[in-house]
Amino acid sequence: MSFAYHRTVRFADTDAAGVVYFANFLSLCHEAYEEALSAHGIDLARFFADTGIVVPIAKSSADYLRPLACGDKLRVTLRPALLSENSFAIDYEITRLGPPAKLAARVRTEHVSTSPRLRERVPLPPALTDWIARQQ
Amino acid sequence: MSFAYHRTVRFADTDAAGVVYFANFLSLCHEAYEEALSAHGIDLARFFADTGIVVPIAKSSADYLRPLACGDKLRVTLRPALLSENSFAIDYEITRLGPPAKLAARVRTEHVSTSPRLRERVPLPPALTDWIARQQ
Amino acid sequence: MSFAYHRTVRFADTDAAGVVYFANFLSLCHEAYEEALSAHGIDLARFFADTGIVVPIAKSSADYLRPLACGDKLRVTLRPALLSENSFAIDYEITRLGPPAKLAARVRTEHVSTSPRLRERVPLPPALTDWIARQQ
Amino acid sequence: MSFAYHRTVRFADTDAAGVVYFANFLSLCHEAYEEALSAHGIDLARFFADTGIVVPIAKSSADYLRPLACGDKLRVTLRPALLSENSFAIDYEITRLGPPAKLAARVRTEHVSTSPRLRERVPLPPALTDWIARQQ
Repeated sequence: MSFAYHRTVRFADTDAAGVVYFANFLSLCHEAYEEALSAHGIDLARFFADTGIVVPIAKSSADYLRPLACGDKLRVTLRPALLSENSFAIDYEITRLGPPAKLAARVRTEHVSTSPRLRERVPLPPALTDWIARQQ
Repeated sequence: MSFAYHRTVRFADTDAAGVVYFANFLSLCHEAYEEALSAHGIDLARFFADTGIVVPIAKSSADYLRPLACGDKLRVTLRPALLSENSFAIDYEITRLGPPAKLAARVRTEHVSTSPRLRERVPLPPALTDWIARQQ
Repeated sequence: MSFAYHRTVRFADTDAAGVVYFANFLSLCHEAYEEALSAHGIDLARFFADTGIVVPIAKSSADYLRPLACGDKLRVTLRPALLSENSFAIDYEITRLGPPAKLAARVRTEHVSTSPRLRERVPLPPALTDWIARQQ
Repeated sequence: MSFAYHRTVRFADTDAAGVVYFANFLSLCHEAYEEALSAHGIDLARFFADTGIVVPIAKSSADYLRPLACGDKLRVTLRPALLSENSFAIDYEITRLGPPAKLAARVRTEHVSTSPRLRERVPLPPALTDWIARQQ
């Protein structure tokens, strides 16, 4: 089961080519990730302060399939998967709602659980592994 | 009667000071403006193509009253007012929802109806004056 | 004497109207402010950690005089002025270099020296009052 | 031979984690691409108007190796390569200057030459194939 986030494309998302700037597709996905965590009771900003652990993005990839214009209604779905005890991936699909709905982009991010204090990888916090398990 | 737009603060809105970057308060307001026009049936992107008229922002001002953090729930209200046959202003309030709710910023933008082809000010299109009249 | 910062307009600065998004004029000015402080030996990010004092923007205003397009070469000049022992203002001019050079925007920001720990205004740190004095 | 672009990290590039927001690494690379084309005499914004051809990004990938903080001095190098008569890739390295200099990210974008009017892929314009050939 995947999580779905809805969003309208705004002027600030676009560039002079008249469509969403390519890097902003990744921001749209991160918004969906923040919303999914929030729906699970995790607040990313406080999460770090409480656990001393950060889970920065180590890799991203994106296939841009269709341009998105200001005012377009979007659905971003995401599905996380464990990669190791220290890391997980999230696969996203950005769909431009229609009719007809059209897949506009596929994005993937990989996240690594890290202790800034120890300067090394650490096991994912239970709140995150629990979130990942429930999204399967 | 004013229009209300709801939005959650995202990581992409914030900066290294841990709170929303000052210029992004203005973006939040423009999102509310886009949503208000859309609710009135006006699509800003297509509006220009159809009428050949643009209504760029000529002035902005902002009072930043409270910092906003990632995850904060916001309500942006706006109220437009005619300034002349060629121009209008919008007054915005950004409120951080609580409890207790707290006013976080007051923003004002002034917009001038312009014909890029004629390179001069032109009367506001009826769709906009109608929208402004209905928000009073 | 004022400080000058040079910058080329990038795609990421623009929106679907084909020109720089209005809120990004303020970002251009903040970049010039960061560069001016850096030229004076102040690193904003470390400054907070070292002094425990932040100087957030309490007000901004902008007059947008000309649109700026991708590739335009800009000069941003700034001039700070003390407002009180706790606050200062900066007046910016954004000029699109020519020939002929054209003034594209006037922006003003007001900054208030604050102690997040004490939750109150505090006198400006000497490094900042020194910077302001030298820019007169 | 590769092209090098220099840039200082700004507050607007960062997020509440205190470092450059992951999607902004891609923007940094696109800036370098715009600067490289400009140095070769190509103005991306006018290029489309003159040729009726756009070269949007169809894929991107990024390895984020080190966090970047506000004030960090960066060098972005890029190297383009033809993929087909319709497409090319650019490999970027973002280096945080030191001493010691440290590789902070590797990014790759793939671009496809497209005619919006014909709604199909078209051969790369000679100005772009010439730029790619000279960067080898």
